Amino acid sequence: MSDFAATKAMFHLPEGVIYLDGNSLGPLPKAAGARMERAMRDEWGEMLITGWNKAGWMAQPAELGDRIARLIGAEPGHVMLGDTLSIKVYQALAAALEMRPERRVILSDSGNFPSDLYMAEGLIGALDRGYELRVVAPEEVADAINPDVAVTLLTEVDYRTGRMHDMAALTARAHDAGALTIWDLAHSAGAVPVDLAGVDADFAVGCTYKFLNGGPGAPAFIYVAPRYADHARPALSGWLGHAAPFDFEQVYRAGEGLARMRVGTPPVLAMAALDSALDIWDGVDMKALRTRAQTLSERFIASVEDSCPMLELASPRDPEARGSQVSFRFAQGYAAMQACIAQGVIGDFRAPDIMRFGITPLYIDAGDIDRAAAVIARVMQDRLWDDPAYQARSAVT
Amino acid sequence: MSDFAATKAMFHLPEGVIYLDGNSLGPLPKAAGARMERAMRDEWGEMLITGWNKAGWMAQPAELGDRIARLIGAEPGHVMLGDTLSIKVYQALAAALEMRPERRVILSDSGNFPSDLYMAEGLIGALDRGYELRVVAPEEVADAINPDVAVTLLTEVDYRTGRMHDMAALTARAHDAGALTIWDLAHSAGAVPVDLAGVDADFAVGCTYKFLNGGPGAPAFIYVAPRYADHARPALSGWLGHAAPFDFEQVYRAGEGLARMRVGTPPVLAMAALDSALDIWDGVDMKALRTRAQTLSERFIASVEDSCPMLELASPRDPEARGSQVSFRFAQGYAAMQACIAQGVIGDFRAPDIMRFGITPLYIDAGDIDRAAAVIARVMQDRLWDDPAYQARSAVT
Repeated sequence: MSDFAATKAMFHLPEGVIYLDGNSLGPLPKAAGARMERAMRDEWGEMLITGWNKAGWMAQPAELGDRIARLIGAEPGHVMLGDTLSIKVYQALAAALEMRPERRVILSDSGNFPSDLYMAEGLIGALDRGYELRVVAPEEVADAINPDVAVTLLTEVDYRTGRMHDMAALTARAHDAGALTIWDLAHSAGAVPVDLAGVDADFAVGCTYKFLNGGPGAPAFIYVAPRYADHARPALSGWLGHAAPFDFEQVYRAGEGLARMRVGTPPVLAMAALDSALDIWDGVDMKALRTRAQTLSERFIASVEDSCPMLELASPRDPEARGSQVSFRFAQGYAAMQACIAQGVIGDFRAPDIMRFGITPLYIDAGDIDRAAAVIARVMQDRLWDDPAYQARSAVT
Repeated sequence: MSDFAATKAMFHLPEGVIYLDGNSLGPLPKAAGARMERAMRDEWGEMLITGWNKAGWMAQPAELGDRIARLIGAEPGHVMLGDTLSIKVYQALAAALEMRPERRVILSDSGNFPSDLYMAEGLIGALDRGYELRVVAPEEVADAINPDVAVTLLTEVDYRTGRMHDMAALTARAHDAGALTIWDLAHSAGAVPVDLAGVDADFAVGCTYKFLNGGPGAPAFIYVAPRYADHARPALSGWLGHAAPFDFEQVYRAGEGLARMRVGTPPVLAMAALDSALDIWDGVDMKALRTRAQTLSERFIASVEDSCPMLELASPRDPEARGSQVSFRFAQGYAAMQACIAQGVIGDFRAPDIMRFGITPLYIDAGDIDRAAAVIARVMQDRLWDDPAYQARSAVT
């Protein structure tokens, strides 16, 4: 059983704030400052170029990948850190398409995060040989999997509503149709138990700045199933994915296994922050976390629905079908969320009308849920969203 | 006139070390620790998700790009930070190829950094429609530019020898033949004056962890000439390159100008370190830096050649044809460099036989050059490379 009072104490949480946006950017681990200072002063400052060996920088993308692997049910050695999630989507997609050369359909759904769709569009445009990005409604995905589909590109947990796909069922269905699967775990890793090996997933990608708390712009990760790791071709074939990067050969030879999915020089400072965030995760059992997130989410939904009849639950009511967030629809959602933030409850807004609240048991407890619900009740009952100050849009919401 | 005693004082340089490897990884700016602490504690820690607006994180890739633009002669608004150099090579190359749809040759040279060649290979393999990566000797590039060439992909300063291409002449020649140019500025930015606008360059890419001192794994940058910025198609079309990322539209619409070359979430912590490194650069005149680097390089070459007849100058003897590094060939170069490092002079080795020394006037002065040359003389004269301890290869050199 994980000790969530202990994990909560490991985060810096600003005074007067209840933070329900860890599904967008996790908070600062208290130990991250010292870890970063070590990376900067003792490693970069003192070791300089020798840090690549002495401080182990070069090995960190694989080591951090292994620590994430445990959280998503991946085989050790099959998760590699690096780049951004969008880049990793492209990398997985390009490799998958080459593994199904006779097929021309990438199947995704309208609940996918737009960047995944954009990256697919960009790849299709570059390839220019009749690929189609077929986007269906989330509930139509299963039936849309047919022998035309080369690969499914799906985000397990919908970023707006928290609706979850059945990863096991859809993966099995894809395999039955001869298609490959790419699972985007942006809202899954650190949020819900994932069992990549168990469901026989082919590729997965994810980010580390949301539920994993790696910091703003923390690197992404990619998973390739062991059966493909040694022959998936990385279209983004950078020198650190080469079999012998420091031989400086002129012709690319893919590195062994997941190493080939490395591209350029790893982001050492960002990895230092992530390292301290993963120290917290090392002690967490994902099933215990899931149970607690569901309990907190149910409590939150009940309280908000009780006090705010104008908010319509946008998330699935069934806890098993919902990720680690709760979303409500409200026409004035943008202004209402700004009002909540002004009152110390930070969630976020997703166009056109979604008020989104992340439920993150590592640092949110029942008291926080009750206080947040009370603030939301006041915002809604007092119609604070009517204040023009809350209606002015900023660049990033 | 730049004050190089003042800039030297702005860096942390370890006791007993003369650092001649700033062409691989620049040293730690003294102010970077406090800047990073601010980014972590005051921004991430206190602002949480609101840091994207309040701390200006979202605008930083363009703002930092503008500060780099000054150093490379780029028009303001035409340098964008992000990703790694390898990714930016791919992005520029994919866009350039689409702008010359009738042509099938990417022209590069054997002095290019291997990752540039690998990324081109990866792209060609994915496109699978008859592209050829034609790699010629550096001195044959000019004659190899012909109407088959879609784009030249060249690194201005050779990473091993420091040999410089004539960027103006080759760009003009490429344009005469109807080809586009991509210039890799990895060993140019912060090393030699670059005038992208003046030479009429089409695309450029570079990294910030070498001469710019942004820290290990600091982000890369891309330049697109104003005449192409609004219609170059980003194959890596991520959400932050979208015209309206936070509208979460399902179909990609490229952002205005360089904004479209953004891909995923920017690396906020890495940008904080780079920010403090660029504070130092803001006061530096590139012509004054170049003059000083040439003076120091001449002094270094004269001293080493005088005392070490077994070392053969691998860099051009003409200071105008040489970047900001000095390289020597020596069959036992690996062990000899390890011996130098053990004696406190840090340079690096590039296979098969290159001992490479970066000359970085921001923090290296004539006294350092003299002391380094004396150490090298002792290593060579005492045949310290014969020591087996120096011959054992490590993973990264």
